[in-house]
Parts: sequence; C-alpha cells; structure tokens
Amino acid sequence: MQAYVDFVLELDRLKAVTRKVKPVGIDRYENSAEHSWQIALLAASLAHLADTPVDVNRVVLMLLVHDIGEIDTGDTIVFEEHGWEERKAAELAAVSRIFGALPDGRGEHFLALWREFETGETAEARFANAVDRAMPALLNLANEGQSWRENGIAHQRVVDRIGPPIAAGCPALWAYMAPQLEAAQAKGWFGA
Amino acid sequence: MQAYVDFVLELDRLKAVTRKVKPVGIDRYENSAEHSWQIALLAASLAHLADTPVDVNRVVLMLLVHDIGEIDTGDTIVFEEHGWEERKAAELAAVSRIFGALPDGRGEHFLALWREFETGETAEARFANAVDRAMPALLNLANEGQSWRENGIAHQRVVDRIGPPIAAGCPALWAYMAPQLEAAQAKGWFGA
Repeated sequence: MQAYVDFVLELDRLKAVTRKVKPVGIDRYENSAEHSWQIALLAASLAHLADTPVDVNRVVLMLLVHDIGEIDTGDTIVFEEHGWEERKAAELAAVSRIFGALPDGRGEHFLALWREFETGETAEARFANAVDRAMPALLNLANEGQSWRENGIAHQRVVDRIGPPIAAGCPALWAYMAPQLEAAQAKGWFGA
Repeated sequence: MQAYVDFVLELDRLKAVTRKVKPVGIDRYENSAEHSWQIALLAASLAHLADTPVDVNRVVLMLLVHDIGEIDTGDTIVFEEHGWEERKAAELAAVSRIFGALPDGRGEHFLALWREFETGETAEARFANAVDRAMPALLNLANEGQSWRENGIAHQRVVDRIGPPIAAGCPALWAYMAPQLEAAQAKGWFGA
C-alpha cells in the first residue's frame, strides 16, 4: 500500500505546476492538476461530438494522466517553438518513473495512455488533444485574452497552432471557436 | 455548443473552492477541482483493492463530479457536526442547475453519478467514498497533521469519522492507515 500512497503524493506535485492562463474571475494562474480535471469533464460532456466515435472512458483517463510528466519539467506554453523534443523526452522519463513505481505493473496502463495522447493517432487521442487545446482558449475568450495579451500571442498564431488539432478531433468545437476568435481579435484581446 | 462552453466555465468556479488541507510542500489550501483530479487517479490505481469488484470508469467519473455542488456552497470540513442536511440540499440544487443546463439531457448521467456517490449504496459509491475520505488524511500524514492541528481535530474523531467508510470501501487502505494514524497521534500531529 505504501507504493500507492507514494504515487498519489508524487501526483500532488502537479498542483504546483502553473500554466499561463488564469481561471475566470480568480487572480492566480491555473495549475495542471485542476486543468486536467476540467478537460476530463469537458471531454465527457462533448464526446458525442468527436470526429470519430470514441471510448469516453479512455479519453477521460488519458486526460487525467496527460500532464503528469510536467511534475519534472513544468508547463510550457503551446506557442513555444523550440525545445519540444527535449521536453517531451524529459516528460517521458518522468512518467516512466512515476507510473513505473506502482506495484505489479499497474502503472503500465497509465503509461500507455500517456504515450497514446502524445502520439495522437487514435480517435481517442485526437479528441483528447482537441479538448486540451481548446480549453485555455475558451478561458481566454472568457478572460479578455489574458494569457494571449500577457505573452504577446497574435490571433493568427493561435489559429495556426490550435485550429488544426481542434478541427481534427472535434469539428463542431472548432466551428464554434473560429468566429469567437475572430471577434476577440476585433476586440483587441490578442498580443501583437 | 454555447451550452457546453457555459457548462465548462461554470465548472471553472470549483477551482476557487478551497478545502482545509494544503498540498504537500505548498503554502496554500487545496481546491476542490485539483482534489477531484487526484482522488480519481488514486481510485484508478487502487480499484483492484476495492471491497467488492467495481467498474473503475464509473468510479473515476463519479469522483470527478462528486464535489461540483460546492460551486454554490463551498467546502465543509468532514468533521463539522451540524447542518449537513441543508448543505446537501443546496449542493443538490447546484448540481441540478449545472448539469441540467447541458443539452439533450446529457447532464443526467452526471447527476445520477452525483446522487449515487451521496447515497453511498453501490460498490462503486462505497469505494469512491473510501478514497475521498482517505485522501485528506494521507495529505495530513505527509504534512505533520496540518489541517488536524489547524482545526483542533483529535485522533479519535478522525478514526471515528473516516475509519468506517474507508474500511467499508477499501479494507486494505484502512489496514494501512489505522497504524499510521496511531503513529501520528504519538507524534502530536492532532488537535485536542
């Protein structure tokens, strides 16, 4: 039992990994643990709108584990253009260590889901990626573009980076978001 | 799509609901969103040790939704002795409103899981309750009894309140915790 307790206390560290966006109406940055909770529920409510039918239970668990590698690396803004290969290798080392410490190979299922999300080839991984990419933009749309303005991210850069994965995994979600992002551009909610 | 976005932005408010325990090594109180994430993963890793075989997917989703009523009521320490009936009625009103706003009755499944957790009669609900009760005590055991000391909670009160539900849902977890709580008592980690 000690190994399971050590595991969940290791997970505790994800509560200290801060992201770039703030929860609506709260003056602090979101952390990766509460983010993972939120997108798991967004996915569970939207699963019927996935591009291809998905096993919603696999999607939920995939989203709950997808950021755990950040325990060692911290969060990196999606608009960063360099160093992804090194970061992903470091995240893989982290999740291999964390999940590998569970007894009787019980972490293998979590590790497989983490890899599946990163590879992004299954219907579940595509849909999970769509929801993960959409959520910070949805918060920014409710927050007058807080993290776009703080980090100097232009409208076109957002559209180029998050449009394709959202459209691939959940077309209805992108159809909703694209005009919202246009309107946000008109309101001056993006960086230069 | 707007209804789903409104739903997930309403969920955002759970990130502002603070609990009594602090994450290990972080000087702030935990919130109910990150707590829900953590216990979903603890449950997923421990499900084979449930008292009765459980559908782990139902447990995970149940734990992800079980605190959403606190969006309207805030969190109440489990050792509070009065007012539970009124609080639970207010939580039910909150989740009925929040899940009821999803289109096409898609929130009914979430509401049913919320009720199932509260009723506590199925194997899944018993196991989910065990994990939910255990987690703050596991954090306190790693935190020198921080919330027990801050709130004046004695060892016997903890054992009486969390022992039966943990033992009922996950006997191996309580078998591990009971002596740990004894040892914490000897170290002076409880309130008077």
